[in-house]
Amino acid sequence: MCEAQRQAAGYAEWSGERLARAYLLRVAEPPAPALVRFVADRGPVRAAELVRRGDVPDAVACETRARKELELAERDLRQAAEIGARLVTPEDDEWPAWPLLCLDVATGRGQRGVAPPIGLWVRGGGNLDAMLSEAVAVVGARAATQYGEQVAAELGYALAEAGHSVVSGAAYGIDGAAHRGTLAAGGETLAVLGCGLDAGYPAGHVSLLNRVAERGAVLTEYPPGTAPARHRFLVRNRLIAALSAGTVVVEAGSRSGARNTAATAGALGKVVMAVPGPVGSALSVGCHELIRDSHATLVASAADVLETVGKLGTVAKRDTGVGNRPTDGLDAEGLRVHDALADRTGKAPEQIATESGVPLSRVRALLPQLELDGLAVRSESGWRRVKSAPGRGSGGR
Amino acid sequence: MCEAQRQAAGYAEWSGERLARAYLLRVAEPPAPALVRFVADRGPVRAAELVRRGDVPDAVACETRARKELELAERDLRQAAEIGARLVTPEDDEWPAWPLLCLDVATGRGQRGVAPPIGLWVRGGGNLDAMLSEAVAVVGARAATQYGEQVAAELGYALAEAGHSVVSGAAYGIDGAAHRGTLAAGGETLAVLGCGLDAGYPAGHVSLLNRVAERGAVLTEYPPGTAPARHRFLVRNRLIAALSAGTVVVEAGSRSGARNTAATAGALGKVVMAVPGPVGSALSVGCHELIRDSHATLVASAADVLETVGKLGTVAKRDTGVGNRPTDGLDAEGLRVHDALADRTGKAPEQIATESGVPLSRVRALLPQLELDGLAVRSESGWRRVKSAPGRGSGGR
Repeated sequence: MCEAQRQAAGYAEWSGERLARAYLLRVAEPPAPALVRFVADRGPVRAAELVRRGDVPDAVACETRARKELELAERDLRQAAEIGARLVTPEDDEWPAWPLLCLDVATGRGQRGVAPPIGLWVRGGGNLDAMLSEAVAVVGARAATQYGEQVAAELGYALAEAGHSVVSGAAYGIDGAAHRGTLAAGGETLAVLGCGLDAGYPAGHVSLLNRVAERGAVLTEYPPGTAPARHRFLVRNRLIAALSAGTVVVEAGSRSGARNTAATAGALGKVVMAVPGPVGSALSVGCHELIRDSHATLVASAADVLETVGKLGTVAKRDTGVGNRPTDGLDAEGLRVHDALADRTGKAPEQIATESGVPLSRVRALLPQLELDGLAVRSESGWRRVKSAPGRGSGGR
Repeated sequence: MCEAQRQAAGYAEWSGERLARAYLLRVAEPPAPALVRFVADRGPVRAAELVRRGDVPDAVACETRARKELELAERDLRQAAEIGARLVTPEDDEWPAWPLLCLDVATGRGQRGVAPPIGLWVRGGGNLDAMLSEAVAVVGARAATQYGEQVAAELGYALAEAGHSVVSGAAYGIDGAAHRGTLAAGGETLAVLGCGLDAGYPAGHVSLLNRVAERGAVLTEYPPGTAPARHRFLVRNRLIAALSAGTVVVEAGSRSGARNTAATAGALGKVVMAVPGPVGSALSVGCHELIRDSHATLVASAADVLETVGKLGTVAKRDTGVGNRPTDGLDAEGLRVHDALADRTGKAPEQIATESGVPLSRVRALLPQLELDGLAVRSESGWRRVKSAPGRGSGGR
């Protein structure tokens, strides 16, 4: 279909970029790190043309070969529009670039399975980026106990009252309770799916998802019609972790999807929290293990959650311009700790932990690393930032 | 009464040291740091004579002035014997010198309220030091929930089965449940009181205390006839903390005696553990605060407790001879971390934490301090001990 035909058919509202990204979301199963990189290099329109032709590097070919004939972009966009959904792309103002940056950083550092999404199918009227500016993820077991569901609902309610949106995965059990608690307080809640927006999954949550879309958003990488699958839920978990300042695990068995989300959040440098429960409960074992192993901070209330993630909101959004900076080798936590240092005033690790939102034990581990990297120095008054050496960058960032 | 009269009255079995310490335990309300120091300098017999005469430094006079006329040593020893009890002193082989050393160290560093006891009134047949060689304290709220009492009883049972004795405070609630659980497994349990052995307190636990004395020991600093009092329970808490390798708080309100014991144990360099519970329970608030503030390690089972304290048993007993050593300025945790370092092989902080039993976050804080003190060095393979400089001591210890 040429541009004239497309306009005649009433699809003029879709830009070339949007059509290209809809096509790319259809032809590659996420996460698709090579394709994401290729799109970043060539731009979505040119990248889509080259994928169609098969004129791509091997790694991109591997990710796209099986489905590159599927020319469903317009159909997908039309179907989305029919259910009140839209495709949000990095070209849009509402693209949550800052929350998703951690996926770029982690992928750049060689972490597997955490490539950013090429676009997000979104059902719900609000500005996606604005809704995610103060988001907390509340996740947990599907086979939750009454205790866990009550805690999740109360957390959702209290976080909403405090002005935070709540991200979860729309599953039965903890996820559903978190969404419902947030809705009960009139708050914004976002459900990230591991299937298409039209999959009607989970079946018992169709009306809940309708209410989530009214008050917040339902979102997914997967094009309309994509069926739910276990591997897609695990892939989806990276988005839940990335889109939130912190992730609270309310109940989790020893090996569980919620622990997977927690591990991903930790690897992305996000705050991980866990709610304790009775020691005899199998559904609290995963939470207790996370806390005991220092992979999560214990939270017993919404106040604890806000105290733990609260300081994150004060971290200035990072300049995302390119260039070789001395801090380029740092991971997200390292950057946060480095940001919290001052050039002249020494700070104690406790103060740095508070200001950066990075757990004290990690701060204590990272400071000597920053010292080795020549980025920090210990003085009698505490830890200070080292001004960047001449020629290594401008302004130390 | 002269020695001849005393012998005629059948008290020949009491040595001058024992009579002197019985007198001193009667005349000073613990903790009595100046008196303890005075006794260490002069020996108990000479110290008692000088106290009687009032020929003592001001600080000792302040601690002993009000009661120094009370010549009740023989009566106290006789009354103790009548209820099957004895006075255990530092001159006895069964004196728990190693566990109590932390009180000396902390007092020497200027910590208040943790002076060692001058002697211990003990009811129970076993060797006191042997019973305390692998002891774990299990403490908590008097107004405990059914959940808390069940967890305490199960912990006591499982720790006893694993060969550990259980120390607690004989109070209603968690303490009593811990003693009972240990007894149910046929294990040794020790009750440390804040009153005389004959006080019959708490009234509902008289028969429980009889069973504790049969299978372990009931002990106190307070002479026969001393009434229970709130301040004595707080003073007693330092003994519970000192006599155990680690302290488990099962349930505790936000401000509670159990938290006092936990704080004391932490200040003494002992392992502090806390059991989580339902977040809605006021009796778990104190435990959650301890864990959240990194003052306690979360334990959800006896296996967790053993894993947390287990490595402590392998730390060699420290040479207590005198002399200026480079490590003299270190606190108990610093010494444990220093002990865990090797001269040639580098170790990761995680390994040092495991071997020393000191929490990882503390290890990470202490290693740079040891480095500043010239006692440790960071190499590519990890942290190593620095051999002591010539003339600073022999063998680096």
